Amino acid sequence: MDQLEMKKIAARAALQYVKPDTIVGVGSGSTVNCFIEALGEMRDEIKGAVAASKNSEELLRKQGIEVFNANEVSSLDVYIDGADEITPQGYMIKGGGAALTREKIVSSLAKKFICIVDSSKQVDVLGSTFALPVEVIPMARSYVARQLVALGGTPEYRENVVTDNGNVILDVYNFKILEPLKMEHTINNIAGVVTNGIFAQRYANITIVGTPDGAKILE
Amino acid sequence: MDQLEMKKIAARAALQYVKPDTIVGVGSGSTVNCFIEALGEMRDEIKGAVAASKNSEELLRKQGIEVFNANEVSSLDVYIDGADEITPQGYMIKGGGAALTREKIVSSLAKKFICIVDSSKQVDVLGSTFALPVEVIPMARSYVARQLVALGGTPEYRENVVTDNGNVILDVYNFKILEPLKMEHTINNIAGVVTNGIFAQRYANITIVGTPDGAKILE
Repeated sequence: MDQLEMKKIAARAALQYVKPDTIVGVGSGSTVNCFIEALGEMRDEIKGAVAASKNSEELLRKQGIEVFNANEVSSLDVYIDGADEITPQGYMIKGGGAALTREKIVSSLAKKFICIVDSSKQVDVLGSTFALPVEVIPMARSYVARQLVALGGTPEYRENVVTDNGNVILDVYNFKILEPLKMEHTINNIAGVVTNGIFAQRYANITIVGTPDGAKILE
Repeated sequence: MDQLEMKKIAARAALQYVKPDTIVGVGSGSTVNCFIEALGEMRDEIKGAVAASKNSEELLRKQGIEVFNANEVSSLDVYIDGADEITPQGYMIKGGGAALTREKIVSSLAKKFICIVDSSKQVDVLGSTFALPVEVIPMARSYVARQLVALGGTPEYRENVVTDNGNVILDVYNFKILEPLKMEHTINNIAGVVTNGIFAQRYANITIVGTPDGAKILE
Protein backbone atom coordinates (compact mmCIF):
# COMPACT_ATOMS: atom_id res chain seq x y z
CA MET A 1 0.00 0.00 0.00
CA ASP A 2 1.43 3.39 -0.93
CA GLN A 3 1.84 6.40 1.37
CA LEU A 4 -1.10 8.30 -0.12
CA GLU A 5 -3.46 5.41 0.67
CA MET A 6 -2.30 5.41 4.30
CA LYS A 7 -2.82 9.17 4.50
CA LYS A 8 -6.37 8.68 3.19
CA ILE A 9 -7.08 6.03 5.82
CA ALA A 10 -5.95 8.34 8.64
CA ALA A 11 -7.84 11.30 7.16
CA ARG A 12 -11.11 9.37 6.85
CA ALA A 13 -10.83 8.05 10.42
CA ALA A 14 -10.65 11.66 11.69
CA LEU A 15 -14.23 12.31 10.55
CA GLN A 16 -15.54 10.51 13.66
CA TYR A 17 -14.19 13.38 15.80
CA VAL A 18 -16.09 16.07 13.89
CA LYS A 19 -19.33 16.95 15.69
CA PRO A 20 -22.41 18.27 13.86
CA ASP A 21 -23.13 22.02 14.03
CA THR A 22 -19.52 22.94 14.88
CA ILE A 23 -16.77 24.89 13.16
CA VAL A 24 -13.79 22.62 12.42
CA GLY A 25 -10.15 23.73 12.61
CA VAL A 26 -8.26 22.52 9.53
CA GLY A 27 -4.49 22.50 9.09
CA SER A 28 -2.57 22.19 5.83
CA GLY A 29 -0.47 19.75 3.85
CA SER A 30 -0.96 16.58 1.80
CA THR A 31 -2.70 14.53 4.54
CA VAL A 32 -5.01 17.43 5.33
CA ASN A 33 -5.89 17.67 1.64
CA CYS A 34 -7.21 14.08 1.94
CA PHE A 35 -9.14 15.10 5.07
CA ILE A 36 -10.74 18.09 3.36
CA GLU A 37 -11.94 15.83 0.56
CA ALA A 38 -13.50 13.44 3.08
CA LEU A 39 -14.99 16.37 5.05
CA GLY A 40 -16.91 17.36 1.92
CA GLU A 41 -19.33 14.52 2.71
CA MET A 42 -20.26 16.29 5.96
CA ARG A 43 -20.70 19.74 4.40
CA ASP A 44 -24.39 19.92 5.33
CA GLU A 45 -23.83 18.78 8.92
CA ILE A 46 -21.12 21.29 9.99
CA LYS A 47 -21.20 25.07 10.27
CA GLY A 48 -17.89 25.54 8.50
CA ALA A 49 -14.12 25.64 9.06
CA VAL A 50 -11.18 27.83 10.04
CA ALA A 51 -8.14 27.08 7.87
CA ALA A 52 -4.40 27.39 8.57
CA SER A 53 -3.38 28.21 4.99
CA LYS A 54 -4.71 29.89 1.88
CA ASN A 55 -4.41 26.59 0.02
CA SER A 56 -6.63 24.79 2.57
CA GLU A 57 -9.13 27.67 2.40
CA GLU A 58 -9.47 27.20 -1.35
CA LEU A 59 -9.89 23.42 -1.07
CA LEU A 60 -12.56 23.85 1.65
CA ARG A 61 -14.52 26.27 -0.50
CA LYS A 62 -14.31 23.86 -3.44
CA GLN A 63 -15.99 21.29 -1.18
CA GLY A 64 -18.78 23.79 -0.47
CA ILE A 65 -17.65 24.37 3.12
CA GLU A 66 -17.85 27.90 4.52
CA VAL A 67 -14.51 29.34 5.72
CA PHE A 68 -14.42 31.60 8.80
CA ASN A 69 -11.67 34.01 9.85
CA ALA A 70 -9.91 32.99 13.10
CA ASN A 71 -10.88 36.33 14.63
CA GLU A 72 -14.60 35.47 14.24
CA VAL A 73 -14.37 32.29 16.32
CA SER A 74 -13.80 32.15 20.07
CA SER A 75 -13.14 28.41 20.33
CA LEU A 76 -13.00 25.29 18.18
CA ASP A 77 -13.98 21.81 19.26
CA VAL A 78 -11.29 20.07 17.21
CA TYR A 79 -8.32 20.97 15.03
CA ILE A 80 -7.21 18.38 12.49
CA ASP A 81 -3.75 18.52 10.96
CA GLY A 82 -0.80 16.42 9.90
CA ALA A 83 2.77 16.57 11.20
CA ASP A 84 6.28 16.10 9.86
CA GLU A 85 7.25 14.14 12.97
CA ILE A 86 5.28 13.00 16.01
CA THR A 87 6.40 11.29 19.23
CA PRO A 88 4.41 8.80 21.36
CA GLN A 89 3.65 11.76 23.71
CA GLY A 90 2.01 13.71 20.87
CA TYR A 91 4.84 16.26 20.53
CA MET A 92 5.32 17.30 16.92
CA ILE A 93 7.53 19.06 14.40
CA LYS A 94 5.48 20.91 11.81
CA GLY A 95 6.20 23.52 9.17
CA GLY A 96 7.54 21.62 6.17
CA GLY A 97 4.94 23.55 4.17
CA ALA A 98 5.91 26.90 5.79
CA ALA A 99 2.44 27.35 7.37
CA LEU A 100 3.63 26.79 10.95
CA THR A 101 2.59 30.15 12.39
CA ARG A 102 -1.00 29.96 11.19
CA GLU A 103 -1.15 26.29 12.16
CA LYS A 104 -0.04 27.20 15.68
CA ILE A 105 -2.61 29.99 15.91
CA VAL A 106 -5.59 27.95 14.66
CA SER A 107 -4.64 24.86 16.68
CA SER A 108 -4.41 27.02 19.81
CA LEU A 109 -8.09 27.88 19.39
CA ALA A 110 -9.07 24.20 19.62
CA LYS A 111 -9.95 22.05 22.60
CA LYS A 112 -8.46 18.97 20.93
CA PHE A 113 -5.69 18.53 18.35
CA ILE A 114 -6.23 15.40 16.23
CA CYS A 115 -3.05 14.57 14.32
CA ILE A 116 -3.38 12.45 11.17
CA VAL A 117 -0.22 10.79 9.83
CA ASP A 118 1.15 7.78 8.05
CA SER A 119 3.58 5.65 10.04
CA SER A 120 6.67 7.25 8.44
CA LYS A 121 6.09 10.31 10.66
CA GLN A 122 6.38 8.45 13.98
CA VAL A 123 9.66 9.05 15.84
CA ASP A 124 10.89 8.64 19.39
CA VAL A 125 12.87 11.90 19.47
CA LEU A 126 11.95 15.05 17.53
CA GLY A 127 14.59 16.09 15.01
CA SER A 128 15.50 12.47 14.17
CA THR A 129 14.50 12.62 10.52
CA PHE A 130 13.21 16.13 9.85
CA ALA A 131 14.75 19.61 10.12
CA LEU A 132 13.04 22.05 12.50
CA PRO A 133 11.52 25.04 10.67
CA VAL A 134 11.76 28.45 12.35
CA GLU A 135 9.88 31.48 10.96
CA VAL A 136 11.98 34.63 11.25
CA ILE A 137 11.60 38.37 10.55
CA PRO A 138 13.84 38.90 7.46
CA MET A 139 16.17 41.46 9.10
CA ALA A 140 16.93 39.01 11.95
CA ARG A 141 17.91 36.10 9.73
CA SER A 142 21.66 36.13 10.46
CA TYR A 143 21.24 36.91 14.18
CA VAL A 144 18.73 34.09 14.70
CA ALA A 145 20.91 31.67 12.71
CA ARG A 146 23.83 32.40 15.06
CA GLN A 147 21.65 31.78 18.13
CA LEU A 148 20.44 28.45 16.67
CA VAL A 149 24.05 27.41 16.10
CA ALA A 150 24.74 28.27 19.75
CA LEU A 151 21.87 25.90 20.69
CA GLY A 152 23.58 23.09 18.77
CA GLY A 153 21.72 23.15 15.44
CA THR A 154 22.73 23.71 11.83
CA PRO A 155 20.35 26.27 10.34
CA GLU A 156 19.84 26.56 6.60
CA TYR A 157 18.00 29.39 4.90
CA ARG A 158 15.06 28.02 2.86
CA GLU A 159 15.70 29.77 -0.47
CA ASN A 160 12.89 31.49 -2.37
CA VAL A 161 10.28 30.92 0.34
CA VAL A 162 8.27 33.75 1.87
CA THR A 163 5.57 32.77 4.40
CA ASP A 164 1.95 33.98 4.29
CA ASN A 165 3.13 36.53 6.91
CA GLY A 166 5.96 37.90 4.75
CA ASN A 167 8.77 36.23 6.70
CA VAL A 168 11.57 33.76 5.94
CA ILE A 169 12.21 30.18 7.13
CA LEU A 170 15.37 28.70 8.64
CA ASP A 171 15.46 24.88 8.67
CA VAL A 172 17.54 23.61 11.56
CA TYR A 173 19.35 20.32 10.95
CA ASN A 174 21.18 18.10 13.46
CA PHE A 175 18.86 19.03 16.30
CA LYS A 176 17.97 16.22 18.70
CA ILE A 177 15.11 17.73 20.68
CA LEU A 178 15.01 15.85 23.99
CA GLU A 179 12.93 18.46 25.88
CA PRO A 180 10.41 19.74 23.32
CA LEU A 181 8.50 22.19 25.55
CA LYS A 182 11.68 23.77 26.91
CA MET A 183 13.22 24.06 23.43
CA GLU A 184 9.99 25.50 21.97
CA HIS A 185 10.07 28.27 24.57
CA THR A 186 13.82 28.90 24.29
CA ILE A 187 13.59 29.43 20.53
CA ASN A 188 10.45 31.60 20.86
CA ASN A 189 12.42 33.95 23.09
CA ILE A 190 15.12 34.68 20.51
CA ALA A 191 14.52 38.20 19.18
CA GLY A 192 13.27 38.04 15.59
CA VAL A 193 11.68 34.58 15.86
CA VAL A 194 7.98 34.63 14.99
CA THR A 195 7.28 30.93 15.61
CA ASN A 196 9.10 27.63 15.62
CA GLY A 197 7.84 24.28 14.37
CA ILE A 198 7.91 22.49 17.75
CA PHE A 199 4.33 21.80 18.85
CA ALA A 200 4.73 20.85 22.51
CA GLN A 201 2.76 23.58 24.32
CA ARG A 202 -0.04 22.65 21.88
CA TYR A 203 0.60 18.88 21.55
CA ALA A 204 -1.65 16.36 19.81
CA ASN A 205 -4.37 14.90 22.05
CA ILE A 206 -5.14 12.08 19.64
CA THR A 207 -2.89 10.60 16.95
CA ILE A 208 -4.42 8.66 14.06
CA VAL A 209 -1.90 6.58 12.11
CA GLY A 210 -2.88 5.26 8.70
CA THR A 211 -1.55 1.70 8.23
CA PRO A 212 -2.21 -1.14 5.73
CA ASP A 213 -4.33 -2.73 8.51
CA GLY A 214 -6.50 0.36 8.92
CA ALA A 215 -6.38 3.39 11.20
CA LYS A 216 -4.54 3.01 14.51
CA ILE A 217 -5.81 5.47 17.11
CA LEU A 218 -3.47 6.56 19.94
CA GLU A 219 -4.93 8.65 22.77
CA MET B 1 13.26 73.49 31.14
CA ASP B 2 10.96 71.67 28.72
CA GLN B 3 10.95 67.93 27.99
CA LEU B 4 12.66 68.30 24.60
CA GLU B 5 15.64 70.05 26.22
CA MET B 6 16.00 67.18 28.70
CA LYS B 7 15.86 64.65 25.86
CA LYS B 8 18.63 66.57 24.08
CA ILE B 9 20.79 66.53 27.22
CA ALA B 10 20.44 62.74 27.54
CA ALA B 11 21.03 62.24 23.81
CA ARG B 12 24.22 64.31 23.77
CA ALA B 13 25.61 62.50 26.84
CA ALA B 14 25.26 59.20 24.99
CA LEU B 15 27.93 60.24 22.46
CA GLN B 16 30.67 59.40 25.01
CA TYR B 17 29.75 55.69 24.63
CA VAL B 18 30.21 55.69 20.84
CA LYS B 19 33.66 54.37 19.93
CA PRO B 20 35.50 55.41 16.75
CA ASP B 21 35.50 52.97 13.81
CA THR B 22 32.43 51.09 15.03
CA ILE B 23 28.90 50.56 13.72
CA VAL B 24 26.35 52.04 16.13
CA GLY B 25 22.94 50.51 16.87
CA VAL B 26 20.27 53.21 16.77
CA GLY B 27 16.68 52.87 18.02
CA SER B 28 13.73 55.10 17.18
CA GLY B 29 11.52 57.77 18.67
CA SER B 30 11.76 61.42 19.66
CA THR B 31 14.77 61.09 22.01
CA VAL B 32 16.62 59.04 19.42
CA ASN B 33 15.93 61.75 16.84
CA CYS B 34 17.92 64.11 19.11
CA PHE B 35 20.68 61.51 19.35
CA ILE B 36 20.90 61.09 15.57
CA GLU B 37 21.31 64.83 15.20
CA ALA B 38 24.14 64.83 17.74
CA LEU B 39 25.72 61.77 16.12
CA GLY B 40 26.03 63.75 12.90
CA GLU B 41 29.06 65.47 14.47
CA MET B 42 30.83 62.08 14.62
CA ARG B 43 29.98 61.04 11.06
CA ASP B 44 33.65 60.91 9.99
CA GLU B 45 34.75 58.94 13.07
CA ILE B 46 32.26 56.03 12.89
CA LYS B 47 31.73 53.36 10.24
CA GLY B 48 27.97 53.74 10.21
CA ALA B 49 24.79 52.59 11.93
CA VAL B 50 22.10 49.89 12.02
CA ALA B 51 18.65 51.42 12.55
CA ALA B 52 15.51 50.02 14.18
CA SER B 53 13.03 51.92 11.99
CA LYS B 54 12.68 53.32 8.52
CA ASN B 55 12.32 56.80 9.99
CA SER B 56 15.65 56.52 11.85
CA GLU B 57 17.29 55.21 8.67
CA GLU B 58 16.24 58.32 6.79
CA LEU B 59 17.42 60.67 9.54
CA LEU B 60 20.80 58.90 9.71
CA ARG B 61 21.27 59.22 5.93
CA LYS B 62 20.39 62.91 6.16
CA GLN B 63 23.27 63.27 8.64
CA GLY B 64 25.60 61.63 6.12
CA ILE B 65 25.87 58.40 8.14
CA GLU B 66 25.95 55.09 6.26
CA VAL B 67 23.15 52.67 7.20
CA PHE B 68 23.85 48.92 7.30
CA ASN B 69 21.34 46.07 7.21
CA ALA B 70 21.21 44.04 10.45
CA ASN B 71 22.07 40.90 8.48
CA GLU B 72 25.41 42.41 7.44
CA VAL B 73 26.61 42.94 11.02
CA SER B 74 27.61 40.20 13.44
CA SER B 75 27.78 42.34 16.58
CA LEU B 76 27.39 45.93 17.72
CA ASP B 77 29.35 47.61 20.48
CA VAL B 78 26.44 49.76 21.67
CA TYR B 79 22.75 50.21 20.95
CA ILE B 80 21.24 53.57 21.87
CA ASP B 81 17.48 53.96 22.26
CA GLY B 82 14.80 55.59 24.36
CA ALA B 83 12.05 53.88 26.40
CA ASP B 84 8.45 54.53 27.36
CA GLU B 85 9.16 53.35 30.92
CA ILE B 86 12.35 52.25 32.67
CA THR B 87 12.92 50.81 36.16
CA PRO B 88 16.00 51.25 38.38
CA GLN B 89 17.06 47.72 37.23
CA GLY B 90 17.05 48.83 33.57
CA TYR B 91 13.91 46.89 32.62
CA MET B 92 11.86 48.76 30.04
CA ILE B 93 8.56 49.03 28.23
CA LYS B 94 9.02 50.09 24.62
CA GLY B 95 6.88 50.18 21.50
CA GLY B 96 4.84 53.37 21.73
CA GLY B 97 6.06 54.04 18.19
CA ALA B 98 5.21 50.48 17.04
CA ALA B 99 8.87 49.67 16.22
CA LEU B 100 9.29 47.20 19.10
CA THR B 101 10.17 44.14 17.03
CA ARG B 102 12.98 45.79 15.09
CA GLU B 103 14.18 47.51 18.27
CA LYS B 104 14.38 44.13 20.00
CA ILE B 105 16.28 42.62 17.08
CA VAL B 106 18.85 45.40 16.70
CA SER B 107 19.36 45.79 20.46
CA SER B 108 19.98 42.03 20.73
CA LEU B 109 22.97 42.46 18.41
CA ALA B 110 24.61 44.87 20.86
CA LYS B 111 26.97 44.26 23.74
CA LYS B 112 25.55 47.24 25.66
CA PHE B 113 22.12 48.91 25.62
CA ILE B 114 22.36 52.61 26.52
CA CYS B 115 18.90 53.97 27.32
CA ILE B 116 18.35 57.73 26.96
CA VAL B 117 15.29 59.22 28.67
CA ASP B 118 13.92 62.26 30.41
CA SER B 119 12.89 61.75 34.03
CA SER B 120 9.18 61.31 33.20
CA LYS B 121 10.02 57.77 31.96
CA GLN B 122 11.39 56.52 35.29
CA VAL B 123 9.06 54.15 37.17
CA ASP B 124 9.42 51.60 39.94
CA VAL B 125 7.06 49.04 38.38
CA LEU B 126 6.54 48.56 34.63
CA GLY B 127 2.98 49.24 33.50
CA SER B 128 2.50 52.06 36.03
CA THR B 129 1.95 54.81 33.49
CA PHE B 130 2.20 53.23 30.05
CA ALA B 131 0.28 50.48 28.27
CA LEU B 132 2.29 47.44 27.13
CA PRO B 133 2.40 47.11 23.32
CA VAL B 134 2.20 43.59 21.85
CA GLU B 135 2.81 42.97 18.14
CA VAL B 136 0.45 40.29 16.81
CA ILE B 137 -0.18 38.41 13.53
CA PRO B 138 -3.51 39.90 12.29
CA MET B 139 -5.43 36.60 12.25
CA ALA B 140 -4.55 35.98 15.92
CA ARG B 141 -5.76 39.33 17.22
CA SER B 142 -8.86 38.10 19.06
CA TYR B 143 -7.18 34.95 20.39
CA VAL B 144 -4.19 36.87 21.77
CA ALA B 145 -6.47 39.52 23.29
CA ARG B 146 -8.33 36.79 25.21
CA GLN B 147 -5.06 35.35 26.52
CA LEU B 148 -3.92 38.82 27.67
CA VAL B 149 -7.21 39.25 29.53
CA ALA B 150 -6.57 35.90 31.21
CA LEU B 151 -3.18 37.29 32.33
CA GLY B 152 -4.95 40.23 33.99
CA GLY B 153 -4.57 42.97 31.36
CA THR B 154 -7.01 45.06 29.34
CA PRO B 155 -5.92 44.90 25.69
CA GLU B 156 -6.98 47.55 23.21
CA TYR B 157 -6.51 47.27 19.47
CA ARG B 158 -4.40 50.20 18.18
CA GLU B 159 -6.59 51.39 15.29
CA ASN B 160 -5.12 52.16 11.86
CA VAL B 161 -1.61 51.02 12.77
CA VAL B 162 0.28 48.41 10.76
CA THR B 163 3.87 47.70 11.83
CA ASP B 164 6.86 47.64 9.47
CA ASN B 165 6.37 43.84 9.51
CA GLY B 166 2.71 43.99 8.42
CA ASN B 167 1.26 43.14 11.85
CA VAL B 168 -1.11 44.82 14.33
CA ILE B 169 -0.56 46.18 17.85
CA LEU B 170 -2.54 45.46 21.01
CA ASP B 171 -1.92 47.94 23.86
CA VAL B 172 -2.41 46.28 27.23
CA TYR B 173 -3.69 48.55 30.01
CA ASN B 174 -3.94 47.84 33.75
CA PHE B 175 -0.91 45.58 33.74
CA LYS B 176 1.36 45.84 36.79
CA ILE B 177 4.44 43.92 35.67
CA LEU B 178 6.17 42.75 38.84
CA GLU B 179 8.30 40.04 37.19
CA PRO B 180 9.34 41.52 33.83
CA LEU B 181 11.47 38.63 32.54
CA LYS B 182 8.84 36.02 33.39
CA MET B 183 6.04 38.09 31.83
CA GLU B 184 8.09 38.80 28.71
CA HIS B 185 8.54 35.07 28.15
CA THR B 186 4.94 34.18 29.01
CA ILE B 187 3.59 36.62 26.43
CA ASN B 188 6.13 35.54 23.79
CA ASN B 189 4.82 31.99 24.09
CA ILE B 190 1.24 32.91 23.18
CA ALA B 191 0.60 31.68 19.62
CA GLY B 192 0.34 34.63 17.25
CA VAL B 193 2.52 37.00 19.30
CA VAL B 194 5.52 38.29 17.34
CA THR B 195 7.07 40.40 20.11
CA ASN B 196 6.03 42.22 23.24
CA GLY B 197 7.29 45.56 24.50
CA ILE B 198 8.89 44.26 27.72
CA PHE B 199 12.67 44.55 27.43
CA ALA B 200 13.92 42.42 30.33
CA GLN B 201 15.91 39.69 28.57
CA ARG B 202 17.64 42.59 26.79
CA TYR B 203 17.62 45.19 29.61
CA ALA B 204 19.46 48.52 29.61
CA ASN B 205 23.05 48.34 30.87
CA ILE B 206 23.33 52.10 31.28
CA THR B 207 20.52 54.63 31.75
CA ILE B 208 21.12 58.29 30.94
CA VAL B 209 18.48 60.62 32.37
CA GLY B 210 18.27 64.16 31.05
CA THR B 211 17.55 66.61 33.90
CA PRO B 212 17.69 70.41 34.32
CA ASP B 213 20.99 69.83 36.18
CA GLY B 214 22.54 67.89 33.32
CA ALA B 215 22.77 64.21 32.44
CA LYS B 216 22.48 61.70 35.28
CA ILE B 217 24.17 58.40 34.44
CA LEU B 218 22.96 55.19 36.13
CA GLU B 219 24.98 52.01 35.61
